[in-house]
Amino acid sequence: MSKYAMYGKFQAHPGKGSELAQILLEAAEQSKSFDGCELYLINEAAEDPDTIWVTELWRDEAAHDASLQNEGARALISRAMPLIAGVEPVKLRPLGGKGY
Amino acid sequence: MSKYAMYGKFQAHPGKGSELAQILLEAAEQSKSFDGCELYLINEAAEDPDTIWVTELWRDEAAHDASLQNEGARALISRAMPLIAGVEPVKLRPLGGKGY
Repeated sequence: MSKYAMYGKFQAHPGKGSELAQILLEAAEQSKSFDGCELYLINEAAEDPDTIWVTELWRDEAAHDASLQNEGARALISRAMPLIAGVEPVKLRPLGGKGY
Repeated sequence: MSKYAMYGKFQAHPGKGSELAQILLEAAEQSKSFDGCELYLINEAAEDPDTIWVTELWRDEAAHDASLQNEGARALISRAMPLIAGVEPVKLRPLGGKGY
């Protein structure tokens, strides 16, 4: 199975970007213990602090899918939901490069 | 100075995505020797092999800007240009997470 990557674009409700980013940083802390998680980076869009982008890289898609079943992850998703106006995932097939 | 990240979305002319990805993988090889380059990952969009996304993470924006002056990088840009229909950069302020 090949590696799996995605960008998650989270649009926060107006003024809620920073609070959402803090929850996603907690999710990133959790991800450090997840089997197969290689990158989980939280970024604010340079031109809009209410748009948060998450860069994910996983050993394979199964590892990513398994992480969504984790109880701690689901608790964070529940806390984040009220802050989120919309989510737009960009699914990727990583080919290589520095950090692959 | 804080870290600097961006996603570069490259739309290749129809059928040219794979050729463009190969050139970007060469750029990624070069980037391994660039001061301050922490990630330079080449990805194909899962749903369109003519859309290539580059994930970049740099020590700071100055290191990113300096890399664009590199002669080898400029030569690769020249080779890639005829394959590219459009470029859409997403500029990011990295906040933290796994791989930061």
